[in-house]
Amino acid sequence: MSDAIKKFQAHAGRIIRLNEAAGLLGWDQQTFMPPAAAESRAEQLATLSELIHEMSTSKEMGDLIASAEAETAALDPDSDEARTMKKARRDYDIATKLPTELVAEIARHETLSHEVWVKARQHADFAGFAPSLKKMFDLTRQKAECLGYTDHIYDALIDLYEPGMKHADVAKMFSEMKPGLVELTHAIADSSNPVDNSVVHGDFPGDKQREVTLKLIDAIGFDRKRGRQDEAAHPFCAGFNRNDVRLTTRIDPQYFSQAMYASLHEAGHGMYEQGSPEHFEGTVLAGGVSLGIHESQSRLWENLVGRSRAFVGWAFPMIQEAFPQKLGSVSSEQFYRAVNNVEPSLVRVEADEVTYNLHVLMRFELESAILSGKLDIDDLPDAWDTLSEQYLGIMPPDDGKGCLQDVHWSAGLIGYFPTYTLGNLVSGQIWNAINKALPDVNALMAKGEFAPILEWLRTNIHQHASKFEPSELILKATGEPLTSCYYVDYLTSKYSEIYSL
Amino acid sequence: MSDAIKKFQAHAGRIIRLNEAAGLLGWDQQTFMPPAAAESRAEQLATLSELIHEMSTSKEMGDLIASAEAETAALDPDSDEARTMKKARRDYDIATKLPTELVAEIARHETLSHEVWVKARQHADFAGFAPSLKKMFDLTRQKAECLGYTDHIYDALIDLYEPGMKHADVAKMFSEMKPGLVELTHAIADSSNPVDNSVVHGDFPGDKQREVTLKLIDAIGFDRKRGRQDEAAHPFCAGFNRNDVRLTTRIDPQYFSQAMYASLHEAGHGMYEQGSPEHFEGTVLAGGVSLGIHESQSRLWENLVGRSRAFVGWAFPMIQEAFPQKLGSVSSEQFYRAVNNVEPSLVRVEADEVTYNLHVLMRFELESAILSGKLDIDDLPDAWDTLSEQYLGIMPPDDGKGCLQDVHWSAGLIGYFPTYTLGNLVSGQIWNAINKALPDVNALMAKGEFAPILEWLRTNIHQHASKFEPSELILKATGEPLTSCYYVDYLTSKYSEIYSL
Repeated sequence: MSDAIKKFQAHAGRIIRLNEAAGLLGWDQQTFMPPAAAESRAEQLATLSELIHEMSTSKEMGDLIASAEAETAALDPDSDEARTMKKARRDYDIATKLPTELVAEIARHETLSHEVWVKARQHADFAGFAPSLKKMFDLTRQKAECLGYTDHIYDALIDLYEPGMKHADVAKMFSEMKPGLVELTHAIADSSNPVDNSVVHGDFPGDKQREVTLKLIDAIGFDRKRGRQDEAAHPFCAGFNRNDVRLTTRIDPQYFSQAMYASLHEAGHGMYEQGSPEHFEGTVLAGGVSLGIHESQSRLWENLVGRSRAFVGWAFPMIQEAFPQKLGSVSSEQFYRAVNNVEPSLVRVEADEVTYNLHVLMRFELESAILSGKLDIDDLPDAWDTLSEQYLGIMPPDDGKGCLQDVHWSAGLIGYFPTYTLGNLVSGQIWNAINKALPDVNALMAKGEFAPILEWLRTNIHQHASKFEPSELILKATGEPLTSCYYVDYLTSKYSEIYSL
Repeated sequence: MSDAIKKFQAHAGRIIRLNEAAGLLGWDQQTFMPPAAAESRAEQLATLSELIHEMSTSKEMGDLIASAEAETAALDPDSDEARTMKKARRDYDIATKLPTELVAEIARHETLSHEVWVKARQHADFAGFAPSLKKMFDLTRQKAECLGYTDHIYDALIDLYEPGMKHADVAKMFSEMKPGLVELTHAIADSSNPVDNSVVHGDFPGDKQREVTLKLIDAIGFDRKRGRQDEAAHPFCAGFNRNDVRLTTRIDPQYFSQAMYASLHEAGHGMYEQGSPEHFEGTVLAGGVSLGIHESQSRLWENLVGRSRAFVGWAFPMIQEAFPQKLGSVSSEQFYRAVNNVEPSLVRVEADEVTYNLHVLMRFELESAILSGKLDIDDLPDAWDTLSEQYLGIMPPDDGKGCLQDVHWSAGLIGYFPTYTLGNLVSGQIWNAINKALPDVNALMAKGEFAPILEWLRTNIHQHASKFEPSELILKATGEPLTSCYYVDYLTSKYSEIYSL
């Protein structure tokens, strides 16, 4: 490695460690932090964020990158060194467009607005959250203007989460999927073989749910020597680095499958971070490459694996043993059907695979409208309810179960939601490739053998960490560019069988 | 407030927030961090520590202090502004003596050596810890040389924890106390009315211990909206600021009073931090002034309050209700005697009030000898065992219960132990003052009314935070300079009654 790259790596390494520290502060804020500490936590995060921004955008950093680029120009463009500098250049260009004061103000506002959201959601009090949300969208608009865009203000934001993607791409993606999804949803609604999901509701003691979810994430390969699982209002995964990955789940003692699938989902994210190779540790190439690819990992373990008949067949006896009163006389097939119930519901994180993307579509349309000035924040609850009725056929009883349900906007994550749907599409395409590589994958899952699946993901996805761009990675891993057909086919075939269509 | 002070406060405020962030990383390391994350945590802390040191010792900081000093020179020397700059000057002078690389190396080694110690202690494997400990003492010696001293290398270190105190002062303090303590210990050993402490040993389910300790710390006034209690191998209190104070306790399901008194002790530290006034928040005057004063608060709540007959009389019915099988037929008086058993034991944190200071004396003598080159690390286990036999009359069965028992040296806390004994003396002197101010303090405690005690501490100790030096604060609060007589008198009178001397 050249001297110039080493010098760059040392400087970048310090920034990465500060980002990891900020990550822990954020994790703590959502898990264990005492309520009165919110204000000082905002100050801590703002200070860290300022420092990180200063160090990332300093003249020193610019010079280090330029020197290292000069020395990597002649290397194979796919070498680690060349890719490191390509990634560094992109990050630097994005960061230098944002003024330090704006970055600090956003960080400070994120922390405060998250606290306001937690209370507002609890009391279904949109008016209490509206001023914070307005300010968040104002700050985000300023951010987008600094970053720049040609077609749509949204482009500047989604590019942060999914490099290269644009508002028009997302709109196209949804318009391609929508007919198939709507047709399938209608066919399911008219099915003569509906699902009874009462078996996953009822009395499921919290302690036992904690135990079972740990057994499940252990079984699929989440390494708890390099991570842990706690609880939070909104399940998330915070992977500081490959050796410290924190999952959270949400436990409702009256509803089991929520915790089960939240845990599998977050463990999917977590295993992706844990699979980042050791030789990238502490460098800009470490960790997951984009939110869409990340979501493909979480959704794959949650749905393609976790909601398969083979997985349920393996897991159910253990689950049954944990909840003998509730599940003693339930069959594995009943449980399988229950966790695959398709029914338009109010809460995205509880939505089934078929209607999930309609939740995402709503949010995409609403945030696009707010950003481009076509929708006022004060009108958001009404607009939300209207779309909810239109797409899902149901009206939220209050804003807590409506437009206040997601943490994202309170945390400044605007332009982020479409990556969920992108993740679904990628998960379908990857699952197709895994089925080709492991023709007996169902037999393996039925025996609780998940290592070959994880191994395939390690080899084809995880080991590349952030080295390749999402579109390159998808091509490399599956042999073809992204297409929605595998996912829509997967849904159609699976649910046609369940609902006897 | 002058412009120069404001500018200084803004710069110092950023450093304080970074210190708080580092504090959280340290807390997490001892509570929830996955084991494999130790190395990256060391890097994160080293990076933060480097940055903090750079910012604390920069020319900018020197200039800001000098300008602010010029503007405060004419102010009342006891004004907040003048005291702020006095404290800032002391901190700056100490920090500028330490090279950034040394500070970073110490921070990095602290984290790694802590992990090594955890394992070594578990397996009573001193040889496994010795190289880390050697390096820690070497680094500490380098640190002391940078800081400078006249009489004894120890002076440079203890001054960091207890401003103004010297090796000779500590030696004198111990020589004054030793005869009285030894006499009392012997008299107790010969007592015809020995204590039976079997009632605090046995089956005390962990969950119930957690509940009871929370009730106790709530009752004495620890505010859990501004803090929390978790578990750790070595109980500690990490107070990041008045609104975020983390306690830990240690739960042994076969021994109740350890958790009870660890919780009261750490809550004593915690309430001191929570009592730091709001107008000092985010400034150099916030938080406890020294370790000795801090320890006076923890020992006061643990012992002077928590081990009093009045406190036990109030708490016992609640404790009895939590452990009906074990304590159903035990009387409050039996429990009171049991938690005041005096018996030389191996582990400092479990030691009684009378022999506790002998544990501290041992450590003071050993670390002094290592620092001044009179004792080799490899000979530490033997030297430890010899002193243990000499002072306590007992020999550790292995190094896990001997020289590996304390976290301190592994964490670079060398020159720190004497502040425990100093804390005891101050607690005795404060308790005497409280008894004068609140003649019915025993009656209040018997009713579970602890607010007047906390109120006295808030007014006379906590509200001053770090504004005054320890010796000034003791004089202000109690009307006289530090003396050991109140503490020795307290011990003699209390234990003469218990042991019918």
